Amino acid sequence: MRIATLAGGVGGSRFVRGLRRHLDGFADGGPHEITVIGNTGDDITLWGLRVCPDLDTLLYTLGGGVHEAQGWGRTEETHRIQGELAAYGVQPQWFGLGDLDVATHIARSQWLGQGHTLSEVTARLADRWGLPTQGIRLLPMSDEPVETHVVVDDGAGGERAIHFQEWWVRHQAGLPARRFVAVGMDRAVAAPGVLDAIRGADVVLLPPSNPVVSIGIILGVPGVRDALRGTTAPVVGVSPLVGGAPVRGHADACLAAIGVEATSAAVAGLFEDFLDGWLVDPADPAPPAASRVPVTAWDRPLLMPDVESAAALAGAALDLALSLQRA
Amino acid sequence: MRIATLAGGVGGSRFVRGLRRHLDGFADGGPHEITVIGNTGDDITLWGLRVCPDLDTLLYTLGGGVHEAQGWGRTEETHRIQGELAAYGVQPQWFGLGDLDVATHIARSQWLGQGHTLSEVTARLADRWGLPTQGIRLLPMSDEPVETHVVVDDGAGGERAIHFQEWWVRHQAGLPARRFVAVGMDRAVAAPGVLDAIRGADVVLLPPSNPVVSIGIILGVPGVRDALRGTTAPVVGVSPLVGGAPVRGHADACLAAIGVEATSAAVAGLFEDFLDGWLVDPADPAPPAASRVPVTAWDRPLLMPDVESAAALAGAALDLALSLQRA
Repeated sequence: MRIATLAGGVGGSRFVRGLRRHLDGFADGGPHEITVIGNTGDDITLWGLRVCPDLDTLLYTLGGGVHEAQGWGRTEETHRIQGELAAYGVQPQWFGLGDLDVATHIARSQWLGQGHTLSEVTARLADRWGLPTQGIRLLPMSDEPVETHVVVDDGAGGERAIHFQEWWVRHQAGLPARRFVAVGMDRAVAAPGVLDAIRGADVVLLPPSNPVVSIGIILGVPGVRDALRGTTAPVVGVSPLVGGAPVRGHADACLAAIGVEATSAAVAGLFEDFLDGWLVDPADPAPPAASRVPVTAWDRPLLMPDVESAAALAGAALDLALSLQRA
Repeated sequence: MRIATLAGGVGGSRFVRGLRRHLDGFADGGPHEITVIGNTGDDITLWGLRVCPDLDTLLYTLGGGVHEAQGWGRTEETHRIQGELAAYGVQPQWFGLGDLDVATHIARSQWLGQGHTLSEVTARLADRWGLPTQGIRLLPMSDEPVETHVVVDDGAGGERAIHFQEWWVRHQAGLPARRFVAVGMDRAVAAPGVLDAIRGADVVLLPPSNPVVSIGIILGVPGVRDALRGTTAPVVGVSPLVGGAPVRGHADACLAAIGVEATSAAVAGLFEDFLDGWLVDPADPAPPAASRVPVTAWDRPLLMPDVESAAALAGAALDLALSLQRA
C-alpha cells in the first residue's frame, strides 16, 4: 500500500509515527510505503544556519530522537551554543536552538551550500534517522525556499510583515495577524516525487496539522491541490480541533486571520474540493448540513499522547479511507 | 607605551597574556596599549563555518576562557556537535571543534555573512572577552581571506597542495612539505590599523610563534615588513626554539620545508632586516658570528607554562627592547 501524507510539525510527526506503528501490525502484510510531504514554510535562516522546523520534528520523531514531552527538538538536549551566542550578542535571541539540533542545521547548511537541493539534503538527514529502513520517504514540499510571513499592524495605522517564526515563537501568535504571505511561493515548484506520490497513492491522509500555516502552505505549492483533486486515492483528513480548540499551537489565531471559524466543520470547508472523509472528535459539534464533506466522529478523543494512541488514530483514519472509493 | 606584537596561536597568546600581566606591575604607571596583529593564514572554512584558530586562541587566552593544559580551545568544552556531524557523515572529520568553540564560529560566520569585515567581527568577539578593557586591541593581519596551503608529494611523482590545517592536524606535519603557499595573499591588504600600529609603536615584540607559518605569513602581508623596517620602535623577537627544538607544534618541519636550519640563529636570520634584538634560551648554541642581529641569552628557559613565567619572559623581551634605540 502506498500512503501519501501532508504534514506539519508535531501533529504530523506523531500521526505518521502512529501510522507506521499501525501498519506494522496490519493484517495485509505489506510492504507499505509512506511518503511524507513536509511543510517548509516555517523554515528560517537563524544565526546563518538553515533551520527547517517541521522537517526536523519529523526526522527526530520518526527516528526516535525527539524530546517526547516537548514534541519537538532533541531528547537529552543542551543549550551551550545558545548561551555563547547570547554572550556574543548575536541576534535574534528569541528563538532557541539546542546543541544537538544545531548540528542538524550545520549539516543541512553545509550541504545546501555545496549545491545540494533540500530534497537531497533531507534524504541524507533521513538516512541517519533510519527513515528509509522504515519504509518512510520524507520529502520537502518544495526545493525552493518558501517562508511564511505574517502581516501585522505596525502600530502606526499601517502594517508590516514579520517571519512566521517571529510571530509564532516570539509573540506566541499574540499579535493579531491580518494575513499570511508565503514568500517565494511564486517561484516554488513541487519537490521531485511530491506530485507523483499523491497521484500514485492508494490512500492520502491529512494528519491533524495546522490547517492554515502547515497544510495550507503545502496546498499552495503549484500542482499539489490539483493532484489531490485528481488522484484516484481516497483523501481523508483528521481534524486538528478537539471540541473547537486546537490540541496545541495557535491554530485558532491562524484561522481567525483568514476569517474562518475555529470549528472542525469550517476547517473541513477549506479542503472540501478534495476531501473524501473527515475524522472529528466525538465531542465535536455536528457540522453544518451544507458541507459536502462526509464527517465521521471517532469513538475516542483526537489526541496522540503516546505512540499507541497515535497508532489507533492513524488506524481509524486509514480504515475510513479504505472504506471509501473515489469514482 | 604603545606595544605592537605579531602573534600566532598558543605561543603568541601566552606571551601577550604575560606581557599584559607584566605591564600591570610596570613601574611607569601607563596606560599601556598592546596591539596584537594576529595570523589568519591558518583560517579555514569547516562545516560551512569560518574558523580563525589563531585569533580564537588569542581571544580565549586573553579573555580567560582557554583550555590551559591544551593551550587552545575552550575550557569545560564538550563535543556533542561533532558527534552529531559524524553521525550525519559530514566531512571533514579530522578537525575537532568543541561546542563552545562552534558558537564562536557561528557568530563570526553570521556577521561575516552580513557584510562585516573580519576586523569588525574580531572587535565584536573581543568585546565579549574583555580585551578592550585590558587595553588590548586584536587585529587580524588582513580582512581578506588568506589561507596557507602546503605543497606535498602526490605519491605519483608530482605534487599537490593541501590546506595548512589538513597538513598540520590531519597529518601532524608528517607529510614532507615542499613549500608553503599563502593563497589569497596577492589580493590581501593589511587590515585597518595594522601598519599604523607598527609605525606608531614605542616597542615591537615578536612572541615565540612559528616563524614560518605564523610570523612568516604575517610578514607576507603587503606593507608589514616595510613597516617593521621603517618604524622608529626597537623590534625584539623571542626565539621559538629551545635548545634547537620547537617548544610545541612542528616548527622544525616548517623550517625544513623552506630550507632553514632549526636553530635560533637561523630563525633570527629570517628577520634580520628588521630585528634589533633576539632573545634566546640559555641552552641555545651561540649564533654564527655572521648574523647582524644582536643575540641576548635569557637567564631562564624560554618556557611559558603559566602566566607568571610568561610575564617574566615578556618582561625580559620588553626590557631588552627598551635598552635598545633605533637611529
